[in-house]
Amino acid sequence: MELCGAPACVGFDPVLDRLPPDVLAGCRGAGRTKDAHKDGEGRRRTAEALAAFGRDVIDAIAGTVAALKINIAFFEPYRAAGIDAYHELVREAHRRGLVVIGDVKRADIGHTSQQYALAHLGDTHAGSPDDDLPDAVTINPYFGWDGVGPFINAAEKTGRGVFVLVQTSNASAQEIQGMATREGGGVGERVGDLVEGWAKAAGRVGRRGDSLVGAVVSPRDLPSTILLRGRMPHCVFLVPGFGAQGRSLEEVAHCFRADGTGALVTASRSVIYAFAEAGSGERFQDWREAVRDAAREFVDQLRSLRSARG
Amino acid sequence: MELCGAPACVGFDPVLDRLPPDVLAGCRGAGRTKDAHKDGEGRRRTAEALAAFGRDVIDAIAGTVAALKINIAFFEPYRAAGIDAYHELVREAHRRGLVVIGDVKRADIGHTSQQYALAHLGDTHAGSPDDDLPDAVTINPYFGWDGVGPFINAAEKTGRGVFVLVQTSNASAQEIQGMATREGGGVGERVGDLVEGWAKAAGRVGRRGDSLVGAVVSPRDLPSTILLRGRMPHCVFLVPGFGAQGRSLEEVAHCFRADGTGALVTASRSVIYAFAEAGSGERFQDWREAVRDAAREFVDQLRSLRSARG
Repeated sequence: MELCGAPACVGFDPVLDRLPPDVLAGCRGAGRTKDAHKDGEGRRRTAEALAAFGRDVIDAIAGTVAALKINIAFFEPYRAAGIDAYHELVREAHRRGLVVIGDVKRADIGHTSQQYALAHLGDTHAGSPDDDLPDAVTINPYFGWDGVGPFINAAEKTGRGVFVLVQTSNASAQEIQGMATREGGGVGERVGDLVEGWAKAAGRVGRRGDSLVGAVVSPRDLPSTILLRGRMPHCVFLVPGFGAQGRSLEEVAHCFRADGTGALVTASRSVIYAFAEAGSGERFQDWREAVRDAAREFVDQLRSLRSARG
Repeated sequence: MELCGAPACVGFDPVLDRLPPDVLAGCRGAGRTKDAHKDGEGRRRTAEALAAFGRDVIDAIAGTVAALKINIAFFEPYRAAGIDAYHELVREAHRRGLVVIGDVKRADIGHTSQQYALAHLGDTHAGSPDDDLPDAVTINPYFGWDGVGPFINAAEKTGRGVFVLVQTSNASAQEIQGMATREGGGVGERVGDLVEGWAKAAGRVGRRGDSLVGAVVSPRDLPSTILLRGRMPHCVFLVPGFGAQGRSLEEVAHCFRADGTGALVTASRSVIYAFAEAGSGERFQDWREAVRDAAREFVDQLRSLRSARG
């Protein structure tokens, strides 16, 4: 997986209540939340609305950002129709030249993780015929190698990648990730060591030094970010929480290596709901422009950050 | 969630290569593994074969075991058709009086876990109209409360339950779960303490003393099993790995409380593929009987185990 241009990734986490009115209006019945899950028809209409919103977001950000992260959780409530919409958007994002990350956070014991890997990374190279599968997926490490390995093996075979959760961005992340270990360091830090071990193995590191095994690292505080960045030299960091989740530029800066490589930064709600934050009714009509502007601003911020650090 | 009778749960993890020939023959084209994922038609046929197998397994075990655990990973490779088959089997198992566990192992940050919870536990009580949603789901703890809480809240609202991963059955489970913590005990043990804390909170414990928050606990060794059982008095243990994963009766016995309650034991491959283990071609014709017999034997083993312990 090679990333070009500004390492900016837009996270697509669509919720029905926040869709622009004209998108909802185009999908009759989808706008009524109480009907969205009632039956197959309600689910189908809602999934269509999410897909319509997604297509317009992709149109607004393509050519500006490098990647789109689609969170499958926001599609699963709509069952089969939701899954179809998810894959349709993966394909559309590929068609528009975006790298696509499937934010699925799966893992299980080995023979079960194999099934998840087959479902989400496939067994052929991205492009054809599986261009409706993402270029990389997010994985939960709790099972250790057995849970992660089948995804890494599938990624090796198909030219795709994985991002293993190391340090997440939520308030209670430290309950488990922050447990102090007897050997020193927190659980998240030790998970980082495991992930780096998997990342640097033979055949997984590309010519630029990046492994197909990356890590989800939220910059919790400066010391932990610097420590993880130093100890995981082969891992690209997928950095959540820029924008709505409130991570500052300075906090995010240290997720990059000193040469400005090694991180892909994600902003979700601050871009895809930029129109709602803009406020006025008039502005709301121009929601596509608001998303486009927010994506550009996001890229500009990252560029200035990298040049400051580089 | 109340469990009646022998606390036996059959795990349904179907793979195409192991389906009985007559099931495959009934779904033209599904038997060719290389076509199973090729396109929508291949996926639809395969999902139909999995559903047909599932209906017959449910018929063979209903009235004998208490519960069916369906692992959604084995359906996801077939995308929309797979998701439809999963929900169809949940509904069919309910119709036949089985408690159903959706083995989905989801979790994410809070507002995303809410979407997963909506997808897999719904927002109305099991029975109607969501009888195609399971009675409980499995959850990954790595995010801490934020990841688990939305599922517990949905379970409280809908009369359902959750099982949080504590100690898993795979070979590499100890890489993270076995990390020694500075406060004492391994990570898995400390996760157990967190889960017990969530389980015993007001309003979550039923009249028999069981919380709607349970735990996935594989009996790794006798001391760890006894310790977890003692420290998690309010949690029902969902115990994987009986049969094919090789846990012995004695190892499993200590997942129950002294009075014989508090565990739901799962056997998967040893039951649903009992026909393959029986060996002969003639026997293979009788595969439904082989599954039926294996379920009965599984229940008998658990009954003798409980009376020995009780």
